[in-house]
Amino acid sequence: MRLRAIISYDGTEFSGYQIQPRKRTVQLELERVLQDMHKGNVVKVVASGRTDAGVHATGQVIHWDSPLLIPMDKWQIALNVQLPGDIRIVSVEQVSEDFHARYHAIGKTYRYIWSLNEVQSPFERNYSVHIDRYKPNIERMEKASVYLLGTHDFSGFCAANTSVKDFVRTIHSIKFEVKKESNQLHMIISGNGFLYNMVRIIAGTLWEIAIGKKSVEDLPEILKSCAREKAGKTAPAQGLYLEKVAYLE
Amino acid sequence: MRLRAIISYDGTEFSGYQIQPRKRTVQLELERVLQDMHKGNVVKVVASGRTDAGVHATGQVIHWDSPLLIPMDKWQIALNVQLPGDIRIVSVEQVSEDFHARYHAIGKTYRYIWSLNEVQSPFERNYSVHIDRYKPNIERMEKASVYLLGTHDFSGFCAANTSVKDFVRTIHSIKFEVKKESNQLHMIISGNGFLYNMVRIIAGTLWEIAIGKKSVEDLPEILKSCAREKAGKTAPAQGLYLEKVAYLE
Repeated sequence: MRLRAIISYDGTEFSGYQIQPRKRTVQLELERVLQDMHKGNVVKVVASGRTDAGVHATGQVIHWDSPLLIPMDKWQIALNVQLPGDIRIVSVEQVSEDFHARYHAIGKTYRYIWSLNEVQSPFERNYSVHIDRYKPNIERMEKASVYLLGTHDFSGFCAANTSVKDFVRTIHSIKFEVKKESNQLHMIISGNGFLYNMVRIIAGTLWEIAIGKKSVEDLPEILKSCAREKAGKTAPAQGLYLEKVAYLE
Repeated sequence: MRLRAIISYDGTEFSGYQIQPRKRTVQLELERVLQDMHKGNVVKVVASGRTDAGVHATGQVIHWDSPLLIPMDKWQIALNVQLPGDIRIVSVEQVSEDFHARYHAIGKTYRYIWSLNEVQSPFERNYSVHIDRYKPNIERMEKASVYLLGTHDFSGFCAANTSVKDFVRTIHSIKFEVKKESNQLHMIISGNGFLYNMVRIIAGTLWEIAIGKKSVEDLPEILKSCAREKAGKTAPAQGLYLEKVAYLE
């Protein structure tokens, strides 16, 4: 039977999601535990997509196949008992045999977090980005973000080392929230899919607009240019969270 | 001149506050950076008290002496630039030559955090305690905590490996807060001083009362008995935060 799980992970101590030789990755830990549960048989885990080293997830989706007859609530408990504490299974459910975590994803939501504290708390150093001496103008960020909504060629917002050919993506929404208690700025962005580093390049570009390094009106120009070097710097990994993956059913 | 700083640290990767051979400690990192700033001369740092491995601080207080003529705001910046990210200097000020971070402390406030999430988030695993399958009765905790207020012999709430002779301490207040957004229970406890592991033994005992393993009326008996084995288990280090140290001035 095919199983789907929502998983959460603290990306700090992982070399990203995907298996790589001699690196600690999320996929490696998941497949190791599943292999243990399947008496040494390899169980391939498929995720909605990769995340880079240091990037977190609160709603990554994976699927795998298993002949084991375990009730769904027991799957969650059995996996969480064996997984390291920086990966947690949030839920498990049975899905149809043709479900595919990557191919069937119709949308994703990411969150990007900036610390606005004068001195970054040691407790948020791996979970937000702190950029000294700047007070961001959030209204400017909001204004500029409107240009990104809708369907565009996002080649200018994609890292060079990618194999994709189609750079057209649709962004459904970009929202900003200032969290009073923690003094953080959150950007929540949803779209039908994102190119490699796209969210972090958008975050970096909007931040440069927020601190006056670029103007709001630069954004439509950058987008139209399709030139990576016109956009802002890629914002650091530790501020990024994969929050939700949407499917049709 | 004598300087006093409020410091914050994430205790996860430290073997506690105090210097120990071949261990990474908070004091070691502080003294290493100060020694660098003083051309290799040893600078002794005195804290309000030790914290154990894994215990955090948001308001630890330290003092040290320095002949350097650096403006106060520059002290903070210079130290934060050189310190690792899991220690941050919150503020620095000049104090009188006879100020002493430990001897002059007249009170301390600690916070203890339990995660009430069904599955502990990977992001809170080092910053709260998660105890499976129990729903704590917070009213019972609150009722029992009242017995601890005031001045008592707390020998029953002190770890065996201590050198102190006087076990009498005064607890000024114990408050509980349920944090809706993070689904955590916080205990905030203030007193004139705390014995070794005292806050963690109080937290462990109140938790056992909250889950029905002990009754509310057991608490005055435990306190009167002065017997460590009657109290609850020492609650884990990663839930504990030294939040404030009070001084007369």
